[in-house]
Amino acid sequence: LTPRRVEALVDATLKGDRRALARLISMVEDGGPDLARVMEAIRPHTGTSYTIGITGAPGAGKSTLTERLVGRARRDGAQVGVLAVDPSSPFSGGALLGDRVRMQAHATDDGVFIRSMATRGHLGGISMATPEAVRVLEASGKEIVLIETVGVGQAEVEIADACDATLVVVVPGWGDAVQTAKAGLMEIADVFVVNKADRPGAKDTVRELRQMLDLSGADAVPRVVETVAVEGEGIDELWEAIADHRAQQEATGALDSRRRRRIEREIAALVAERQRERVREEMPSLLADLVDDVWERKLDVYAAADRILEALQ
Amino acid sequence: LTPRRVEALVDATLKGDRRALARLISMVEDGGPDLARVMEAIRPHTGTSYTIGITGAPGAGKSTLTERLVGRARRDGAQVGVLAVDPSSPFSGGALLGDRVRMQAHATDDGVFIRSMATRGHLGGISMATPEAVRVLEASGKEIVLIETVGVGQAEVEIADACDATLVVVVPGWGDAVQTAKAGLMEIADVFVVNKADRPGAKDTVRELRQMLDLSGADAVPRVVETVAVEGEGIDELWEAIADHRAQQEATGALDSRRRRRIEREIAALVAERQRERVREEMPSLLADLVDDVWERKLDVYAAADRILEALQ
Repeated sequence: LTPRRVEALVDATLKGDRRALARLISMVEDGGPDLARVMEAIRPHTGTSYTIGITGAPGAGKSTLTERLVGRARRDGAQVGVLAVDPSSPFSGGALLGDRVRMQAHATDDGVFIRSMATRGHLGGISMATPEAVRVLEASGKEIVLIETVGVGQAEVEIADACDATLVVVVPGWGDAVQTAKAGLMEIADVFVVNKADRPGAKDTVRELRQMLDLSGADAVPRVVETVAVEGEGIDELWEAIADHRAQQEATGALDSRRRRRIEREIAALVAERQRERVREEMPSLLADLVDDVWERKLDVYAAADRILEALQ
Repeated sequence: LTPRRVEALVDATLKGDRRALARLISMVEDGGPDLARVMEAIRPHTGTSYTIGITGAPGAGKSTLTERLVGRARRDGAQVGVLAVDPSSPFSGGALLGDRVRMQAHATDDGVFIRSMATRGHLGGISMATPEAVRVLEASGKEIVLIETVGVGQAEVEIADACDATLVVVVPGWGDAVQTAKAGLMEIADVFVVNKADRPGAKDTVRELRQMLDLSGADAVPRVVETVAVEGEGIDELWEAIADHRAQQEATGALDSRRRRRIEREIAALVAERQRERVREEMPSLLADLVDDVWERKLDVYAAADRILEALQ
């Protein structure tokens, strides 16, 4: 793209143009050379949203819950952005299926922008693309950004790091204490949502979660909220729990330090990816020789890495 | 550890001492400063195994299948190592539950070494620790290494990259074509295993998989094998499919190029992680200043990364 075209896209996005916004998010997915220019141009208009991550096992009802939270945030008059990210799918190269049919309730609402996101060429994948997509949404005026992830895994944990608040959605009978702990969910949850709470066993799940959370010895014990998202039940309570979490974060300064840590990680990751690129582009023959040496067992990978680090100085 | 102690551990591992081997794998998990010395010492004894990754959704029967494959490989007289890795659990800091109770059948067999692996301190996490653990197993004489992963996600895909052959285990009725494609499994599978094939719908699943694979237009279409792991059915056919895949890889040179690519990725990842460490340790105040600038929206993260890259030169 020409610099003028990038500028025009940014201007249109700042004015709330949806197609321009969609185009900028596609540029984030592609991770092309114009992205740095986009980020520079939107910089003054970023840092303005509260981001809420929604994670949990498939089938827990995350999409319905997300849709309900969109509706709740709209009632407060907030503009809302939704990113549905699928870290397990580095290959898909496009939007998730069902993207266009879901969230019908908000399809005609200009205050809502919904987008499934994959990464086609972005270095560092979805965990590096997500904060940039959030900035683009902020530049377009979104005050609440919901990030729904597919599945639970390391990448989801990384995306949870990228949010101001992380909701972990479970269902009655969902795993046991060991499963939860194993999945690393106790550590990332700011609010636990027991969805489909009209099913048998909901009270047991809530009690079990609370017990585990009490035992964890964390400073701020996450709240546990029951919802029946398809019926819209419990959404106000959930919204209140999120607001409480936010108020507490703001009062203690935890929100600022969380965001600063996030910026630090993002810079460090960018530096690492740039260096990786530089090695591939500037010293391909050194790299090829070192691969040969490791392959022939003349060298181990640590020693090979040291050689490259020397060459980079 | 003293250099002499490291040397003694390596020597004992080379001679097949199981406790020394276990200790070295713990060192891989910890990612401590002695690891480079261990890798240097075992270097001449590595690159000697064929590694088989076993991935698939929870409940697909991966553990039972792994146990059967251990038995099958033992019938060929091969020494076998098993790594059970859980990429979704960066926090667990220890072995998976059930580690000690599973694979009872091989508990007293000196030709088998089974280990659940987490990463406690290793930079780059499980995907960087896994190839090192494989090398340690190779140094101890293991000719077949099975790597069983928990769950399906980005990290599993990375671990699939670390294997010579990747088995993707599904069960009858497991998801549909879209699910499989979404999870990125079509791209990573060298052999598809339809386990629990005595259940209804097995034939449909096999047919559907074959259709998708035919449509994918890949050069080497993965074989689809039916098993009933609990009964030991289909294991010989599966072993044959793996052997065919290996023979084909060896004939075409694909095995060598796959392993070379793996070495290249591993070196590049190590370089990136080392640089990341260097930034944190050598220029903490520059990093803190840049975080402030981004936080105050004076700078975007790309520009901040550029400043650090300049400082690193």
